[in-house]
Amino acid sequence: MTQKSGSIELTQITQWEEGKVSRAEDFLAAEEPLEMRAGRYSLGVTLRTPGNDEELVAGFLFTEGILSRREHLLSLRLPGKDAPERNLVRVTLDSNRRLKARSAARRFSAGSACGVCGKASIAQLRRRGLRRPESATQFDPEVLCQLPDKLRAAQAVFGRTGGLHAAALFSAGGELLVLREDIGRHNAVDKVIGWAFLEGRLPLGGHTMLVSGRGGFEIVQKTIAAGIPLLASVSAPSSLAVQLARELGLTLVGFLRGQRFVIYSEEVRIAVSTLN
Amino acid sequence: MTQKSGSIELTQITQWEEGKVSRAEDFLAAEEPLEMRAGRYSLGVTLRTPGNDEELVAGFLFTEGILSRREHLLSLRLPGKDAPERNLVRVTLDSNRRLKARSAARRFSAGSACGVCGKASIAQLRRRGLRRPESATQFDPEVLCQLPDKLRAAQAVFGRTGGLHAAALFSAGGELLVLREDIGRHNAVDKVIGWAFLEGRLPLGGHTMLVSGRGGFEIVQKTIAAGIPLLASVSAPSSLAVQLARELGLTLVGFLRGQRFVIYSEEVRIAVSTLN
Repeated sequence: MTQKSGSIELTQITQWEEGKVSRAEDFLAAEEPLEMRAGRYSLGVTLRTPGNDEELVAGFLFTEGILSRREHLLSLRLPGKDAPERNLVRVTLDSNRRLKARSAARRFSAGSACGVCGKASIAQLRRRGLRRPESATQFDPEVLCQLPDKLRAAQAVFGRTGGLHAAALFSAGGELLVLREDIGRHNAVDKVIGWAFLEGRLPLGGHTMLVSGRGGFEIVQKTIAAGIPLLASVSAPSSLAVQLARELGLTLVGFLRGQRFVIYSEEVRIAVSTLN
Repeated sequence: MTQKSGSIELTQITQWEEGKVSRAEDFLAAEEPLEMRAGRYSLGVTLRTPGNDEELVAGFLFTEGILSRREHLLSLRLPGKDAPERNLVRVTLDSNRRLKARSAARRFSAGSACGVCGKASIAQLRRRGLRRPESATQFDPEVLCQLPDKLRAAQAVFGRTGGLHAAALFSAGGELLVLREDIGRHNAVDKVIGWAFLEGRLPLGGHTMLVSGRGGFEIVQKTIAAGIPLLASVSAPSSLAVQLARELGLTLVGFLRGQRFVIYSEEVRIAVSTLN
């Protein structure tokens, strides 16, 4: 890589087009590992796009159930400039949370606690305290249909690399509060929720989370953890995502394109007048 | 979910279109956890689309460096019909491999061995024995440009759910050997490589791997592990994917669309005559 500026990198490429070959420079979405450590315990490594690392870590710790309040996080030391600290974030948790972090480290490890069937996974999330988001807010379908265009307009980096997922938080009125991008969809969601966590804005009743790709199980789980009542995506959800949304009472919208969308669960939050 | 047939599930949905609401049934891409266990050791849990689980596990064990030959895998017991065995695969490895599986279980756990910077990750892959794929085969650009259409034509499931990634293996002449789909891109790649592993076809010199999404670090790593010299995708690669492809000598092609593509590394394998 010849040049580097955080979330994108410039590189040499060769283009082939209808038999003609040319050399050029182009931007790539940056991807680098980030390790999270609490004391001696590694909380895992994620491949992420550098940038907003503080939000990523806070959002991850919150959505995975290790932290529930801002004051549990005593300190967060961002990556240093040089190896081996360059992709390492060190967090200090209050003493009651250290045990949780240790058991989480084991969970991310063997992975067995994540359950070996969808039902077990969902039961475990209930035990972790995941609750149905508030149902007082009614969302306007016309406002929903405008969100993908607002997201795309705000995706400055995407236009240059084509390689980043986006997650964005909107008010019920359709105002964009925050947009984050990452090579990993779940990281973009963690950054958005981490932003809200650090700003003291959780839970996020009355808001919509919009993701650029599909809505999978992990995205649904993180959205519910943040108390967001509506998750929308421009693509299809998975079966397990729909199952979790139905059991925990999240409104899940897919294929949000133009003047059309599909509701998979809890349509009661969408202000629709007629049902044929 | 009202009905289930392996990789897709039928479910009730509500559609909104220009103010009109209707009820319908639609297909979802199935997503369920799968845990892999070798004796007492969990090798991790992956969220995958059920189907070709034997290939998924064999491909995962091979591309992660736990198995290198067919005979190392003494037995593989597929998931049973009922919980808790429904999403559990048990493998028996030969005695020399058990230690490797244990250290791998630790690696997937803390994740720290995966390295905390791109350089460390790449150095670790070299130590694991990843080598430059063969360079004797010349790939024809015109043949390359036909591959995405062949992939799409073969993607029966994708047309119904819009939620699955695909990976396919082609001969240098453009013949489709195998296509696999999954909600996880890396799982689709593991299934393709697992198929080749179980068929005794590795290493796959002279072949092209085509993936429907972007080419990330893990996809590049798995492709090189299988000895495949050319990885193509219809989208953008990440910076770390390009770095790894360059260091380990894989030809990486992106934005393969119509009569155009971009070469990010090792263009020597693409039969191009003119360079302006």
